[in-house]
This record gives sequence, structure tokens and C-alpha cells, in this order.
Amino acid sequence: MASTVEPDYKSSSTPIPAPAPATAVVDYFKFDVILRFLLFASSLVSVVVMVTSNQTIYVPAPLSAKFRYSPAFVYFVAAFSVSGLYSIITTLASLSAIKNPTLRNKLLLHYVLWDALILGIIASAVGTAGGIAYLGLKGNRHVVGWNKICNVFDDFCRHVGSAIAVGLFGSIVTLLLIGLSAYSIHSRLPK
Amino acid sequence: MASTVEPDYKSSSTPIPAPAPATAVVDYFKFDVILRFLLFASSLVSVVVMVTSNQTIYVPAPLSAKFRYSPAFVYFVAAFSVSGLYSIITTLASLSAIKNPTLRNKLLLHYVLWDALILGIIASAVGTAGGIAYLGLKGNRHVVGWNKICNVFDDFCRHVGSAIAVGLFGSIVTLLLIGLSAYSIHSRLPK
Repeated sequence: MASTVEPDYKSSSTPIPAPAPATAVVDYFKFDVILRFLLFASSLVSVVVMVTSNQTIYVPAPLSAKFRYSPAFVYFVAAFSVSGLYSIITTLASLSAIKNPTLRNKLLLHYVLWDALILGIIASAVGTAGGIAYLGLKGNRHVVGWNKICNVFDDFCRHVGSAIAVGLFGSIVTLLLIGLSAYSIHSRLPK
Repeated sequence: MASTVEPDYKSSSTPIPAPAPATAVVDYFKFDVILRFLLFASSLVSVVVMVTSNQTIYVPAPLSAKFRYSPAFVYFVAAFSVSGLYSIITTLASLSAIKNPTLRNKLLLHYVLWDALILGIIASAVGTAGGIAYLGLKGNRHVVGWNKICNVFDDFCRHVGSAIAVGLFGSIVTLLLIGLSAYSIHSRLPK
């Protein structure tokens, strides 16, 4: 009862001989791995969707929209590339912590610190790209010339909007990861 | 040695009779109060500087720039108003935890969860406002009409840039708060 919640779920090894003898600690690392995989998937999808957002229109000369024309979208791709790499590394770390429970306390502390940094990076990237995308969608009638462009570059804006939505999902997953790590550390405190 | 780090610093009461007898726990709540006050100050400054960013030029007709003309800057003000209120409430909670150490474990868990949410909100607000401000500063030569405006509205852009810089400082303070709370929980774990 103390070691694992569901013994037949992803364990695929011999039953662990009760590695945490101090208190009844719930094993949160399986949820951690699942959430980190979700962060990886959303980072990958948002980067791919953003990078492939390429549209050329002919009115009357060819006019292209590419993600790399906007510094905001370049920052978005950079931030989610970092979070994707980070999620791969931390997924491996969590998998090793499932096998080796002595690492867990130290790992959970580092998870909270680094997950918070990643949250700050990707939340600001979602904000930056979202602000520019909103300007492209609605324009700003108070500024001369800042007109909307999504009525022309419809396919480009759909790509950008999808990438931002998936990025927002990734930010929420990171928030859940921080909460899970904090809750996991808290559950190990002496009652 | 166990109860307080510097007994003459901000304590201003009778010496606390060793409230945490379990392990040698360092008292991080004074740093917590200082950081939360810094978060409050930076939230207040960034909101005030952003709200007062008002400039009218006459070329030849009067033309105004106000923060509320841009949804990005409105979101920025809303986000930092929330973080300012949050920092007041949590400063009071930390002050009560200095007096009453039995609350601390539960409070630290809630701090990590809610600080991470606030970090997500204000980091995305800094990103959103920063993206629009960068467009105003540099323009985007790939989009017809998205010209820079900071050569005309120089005073407005100085206000906006200062508000964003102070907001970025507030985000870093929130990151430090999460790290401090996580480290504080971790230090209470049984060795």
C-alpha cells in the first residue's frame, strides 16, 4: 500500500520491496512521467505547426507570410524547442526515479525550480505570440497602418492560432507539473 | 540556531521559544516577506507607469497614444493588478506564519501552487506587452503598414518600456519566491 498505487500499471518488473519505509508516500512519479510526456507532445506539436505556417498569396504580386518574419513567433519556436528538450530530459529523470526511489527528494526540489523557469519562458512566449497574433486578427484602429492581416493570410493565421493554443495547453501542463511536484514533496513531510 | 537566523532583524517581539522542535529548520519566511514586498512594489510601479503612459502629439491634428488603446497593455495592467493584490494577501499570510509556525507546512504548499499560477499570468502579460512594444519600437517591414510608432510617441514608449522592465523584474521575483518555498519545504523533509 505504501510503495505503489496500481501495481499492474507500467511497472513491468518484480514488485518493489517497499522502498519508502518512513511514511505512507503516494507515488506521484507515474503522473509526472505522463504530464512530462504531454509537455513534450505539446511542445513538439506547437513548434511543428508554427514552423510550417507558410502562406504565399498573389495579389497581384506574390506576397509571403512566414513565421520567421516576426520576432515574436521566432521567440515562440525557440521557447518551445527548449521546453521540448527539457521535457525529454526530465522524463528520463522521472523514469530513473521510478526505478531508484532514493533520488526522489532531491529530484522533486529541482523539478519545482526548473519547471517554474520553463513555465516563465513558455508563458511569456505564448503571450508574445498571442499579442502579435491578436493584432494580426483584429488590427488596431488607434494606430495608423496597424491593420489586420488574417483576412488575407487566413491559412497562416490558422496555423499560428493552433500553435498558440497548443502552447497554452503546454503551459497549463507545466503548471500542473509544478503543483504535482510540490504536492509530492509536501506529502513526504513528517505529519 | 534552529528558530531564527538573525534575531534582531524585523522580529520586534519577545524571542520565540523554539517553535520547530522536529528538525533544524531554517526560517525562510523573512526572505519570503521581503520578496513578496518586492513583488508588490514592482506590480504597483509597473501598473502606475503603464497607466500614466499618455501622450498627445500635434502633427498637424492632435493624435493620442494611451495604454488602453492596446488590448496587450490592458492585459498587462490587469495581470499586474492581480499580482499586486495577491502579494498583499500573501505578505499578510507570511507575517502570520512568522508568528504562528504551525501553519507553515500547509502554507508553503499553497504558496508554490498559487505563485506558479501568478508567474504564468504575469510572465504571459510581460510577453504580450513586450511583443507589441517591440513592434512599436522596430515595426515589421514584412507587413505592409506595421510601422514603428516610437519615433513619434517617444514619451509613451519610454513609459511602456519602463513598465515592462519593472514587470520582468516582478516575474523574476515570483520565480525566486517559488524557489524559496520549494527549498523551504525540502529543508523540512526528514533526512
